[in-house]
Amino acid sequence: MKVILLSGGSGKRLWPLSNEVRSKQFLKIFKKEDGSHESMAQRMYRMIREVDDSAAVTIATSENQVPSIKAQLGDSVGISIEPCRRDTFPAIVLAAAYLHDQQGVDENETVIVCPVDPYVESDYFRMLEKLSEQASKGEANLVLMGVEPTYPSEKYGYIIPKSNDPVAMVKTFKEKPDEAAAEEYIEQGALWNSGVFAFKLSYVLGIAKKVFGSSDYQWLFDHYSTLPKISFDYAVVEKEERIQVMRFKGQWKDLGTWNTLTEAMSDEVAGNAVIADCANTHVINELHIPLVALGVTDLAIAATPDGILVIDKKKSDNLKDYVVDQRPMVEKRDWGLYKVLDYGIKPEGKSFLTKHLVIKPGQHISYQRHQNRSEIWTIVDGTILDGEVRSVGQGEVAFIRQGVKHAIKADTELHFIEVQVGDELTEEDVERFDFDWSSID
Amino acid sequence: MKVILLSGGSGKRLWPLSNEVRSKQFLKIFKKEDGSHESMAQRMYRMIREVDDSAAVTIATSENQVPSIKAQLGDSVGISIEPCRRDTFPAIVLAAAYLHDQQGVDENETVIVCPVDPYVESDYFRMLEKLSEQASKGEANLVLMGVEPTYPSEKYGYIIPKSNDPVAMVKTFKEKPDEAAAEEYIEQGALWNSGVFAFKLSYVLGIAKKVFGSSDYQWLFDHYSTLPKISFDYAVVEKEERIQVMRFKGQWKDLGTWNTLTEAMSDEVAGNAVIADCANTHVINELHIPLVALGVTDLAIAATPDGILVIDKKKSDNLKDYVVDQRPMVEKRDWGLYKVLDYGIKPEGKSFLTKHLVIKPGQHISYQRHQNRSEIWTIVDGTILDGEVRSVGQGEVAFIRQGVKHAIKADTELHFIEVQVGDELTEEDVERFDFDWSSID
Repeated sequence: MKVILLSGGSGKRLWPLSNEVRSKQFLKIFKKEDGSHESMAQRMYRMIREVDDSAAVTIATSENQVPSIKAQLGDSVGISIEPCRRDTFPAIVLAAAYLHDQQGVDENETVIVCPVDPYVESDYFRMLEKLSEQASKGEANLVLMGVEPTYPSEKYGYIIPKSNDPVAMVKTFKEKPDEAAAEEYIEQGALWNSGVFAFKLSYVLGIAKKVFGSSDYQWLFDHYSTLPKISFDYAVVEKEERIQVMRFKGQWKDLGTWNTLTEAMSDEVAGNAVIADCANTHVINELHIPLVALGVTDLAIAATPDGILVIDKKKSDNLKDYVVDQRPMVEKRDWGLYKVLDYGIKPEGKSFLTKHLVIKPGQHISYQRHQNRSEIWTIVDGTILDGEVRSVGQGEVAFIRQGVKHAIKADTELHFIEVQVGDELTEEDVERFDFDWSSID
Repeated sequence: MKVILLSGGSGKRLWPLSNEVRSKQFLKIFKKEDGSHESMAQRMYRMIREVDDSAAVTIATSENQVPSIKAQLGDSVGISIEPCRRDTFPAIVLAAAYLHDQQGVDENETVIVCPVDPYVESDYFRMLEKLSEQASKGEANLVLMGVEPTYPSEKYGYIIPKSNDPVAMVKTFKEKPDEAAAEEYIEQGALWNSGVFAFKLSYVLGIAKKVFGSSDYQWLFDHYSTLPKISFDYAVVEKEERIQVMRFKGQWKDLGTWNTLTEAMSDEVAGNAVIADCANTHVINELHIPLVALGVTDLAIAATPDGILVIDKKKSDNLKDYVVDQRPMVEKRDWGLYKVLDYGIKPEGKSFLTKHLVIKPGQHISYQRHQNRSEIWTIVDGTILDGEVRSVGQGEVAFIRQGVKHAIKADTELHFIEVQVGDELTEEDVERFDFDWSSID
């Protein structure tokens, strides 16, 4: 089978674990049988391949998740990169065009679209195969997976089918209802909308041609920022008349809040933490300082470079209202990662910011220049470029004055401390230049 | 009146706020009428002076608290510095000798000894005066303050007086009893031992002469590390037959645990934190990252450079069992302070450690040398010494190689980032040298 996994940003509902650049789906919180840990993305991919070892998986995502995907899944998956965030309709159209134009998938083939972050078991993946088979038959343009409700949830959308058969035509959709309405829908045989559906590639490419005037991958990629911010549900699913739903009765959990995420964690503690005399409490500590939780009940506690959260699990749904926007303090890049250690912003005059950077062996940062800041690098080991090419060892210093072009390449894993000093310290203050890296190998 | 305030270390019961070098008594958590905040030490000193504006206060403490005392109380208090930690008997003897030999207090004068950390009101300080007057009469060698119990506490020691008169001779002492025993003592008219007592200077100096062979300040200071680790209660109070107790019926709280400390906090939040939909919850955040507490009840939450704590207030007494020893991450010194930002310890080869240091205007660190590490300093503004004397400005770098003597002096408030690189990174690896600082003014 062919699967498109939608890997979006997870926003504020899992702060401080997720933000615009770090996503919950890459956090290794699930224990495997051999005792090692895997992330949501790894678990999803592994289980798809366990059901169908020839499955082709493509991840639809933004540029900033690519390093995490490559680090966790290697080169075994296709990646359809969204140049900017545009909601699921443009994302699915782009991924479909990617499969057709870049991967050579025939337009009569069936594709399954599925979020990357539900917590599910093998029966879910076997259902994906059935969904694909049903879509191949051509009885409908779209085949949805509907989950049999276990309680009248107010958090999910509902699909109301025309019958209670295992496969049925869809009568209508209902957005997140209140509890009374949800109970009524369930009596009518309604199902939760899991966000999973199957279609023939030609169907979505046809819609693209009609709506955008093109289904060409390169055209869609180049014009991506001009496409409307609209969901696939709203733009396609709810307007389609030839649409079926298949009933799924199995475990299906949304890991989108602290409550549901911690429910799926295999250990109570991840990171440097002690919990004592606690009940139903989970701790994730990504900081290097110790965390102690003593005598507490029903809490999720998380400490990361972006912030600290102590929340009653039952209140998880309200978190997004209390989290403020801020500069991310850790960022993963193709070449490695950086962590902001400290900063001081002065109302007048110069500010400073201190980073710890790690560059992977053989990798380098781009050859670049800053208008509004100088940087002082304290090096551990590697090859450095600052006007001239030279080698530096541990404990050496490079002073990169404002306006001077510079880069750095790692021979072995390279750690360095960067202190930025200047009038304005932003990630945007950077000009990039070409450089022939092979000349210094 | 003459008051000796005992300012000890507060150990692990208030971790991560207190450790071997930072003490709760200097944390500004109490709101004054004008809206500004004061620490326990400041509040105690202010209230003593409000009752008696000619009161002479001496603080008995260790070297590492001196910068905090000077910063918060100025030069208006005497400081008896304990060269090392030796419990309250040596500490009180040393402070008594300090008053006699260094401050010229007559040995017939009365002195009151009192812990720096109870949370009390004006009536407590008026009681100190009465205690001093009673001790002056010479009816007893020691006059204690006994607090009328409000419940059968298992946390305090009990004084059993011979009568229920306002001033009574002491019959006996009982160590922390269980609840049933405490109830029995209270029926007999027992009082809590507040750790407050008054005596004539000659009494304690006489004991010193008898036990140590000397009551000379310099001799005691020089031989301090050889004196026994023993409490004044055990060495003196419980053996004294000519001893009285005065009844005190007023507010008296021990701020030694998170439960009692937060009870006395005027605001629910100190630092960068948001609390929402919480009850009876207090947050102290000394980190620069934000903290969010949502929907929780009866918690004390603290985040400092040393660690993060989430504790049910009722479980406060158990905390010390779960806190591990670790290197302090922030340290205040006479010249300013430093904060450890980051460190990496390598099993083989060189390690690194990054600090942010702040030096107060006109201050300098000692002229020093390290055997096992190099340091790289990135400077904001100041005068620097590294072999030669030179001036440096913001963004400049000083590379101090292993074994080279160095120092730094601040013209204006000086911030710099220090990266240590070496085989062994310890605070102990330092040789200090004399330098004529007036030569570079």
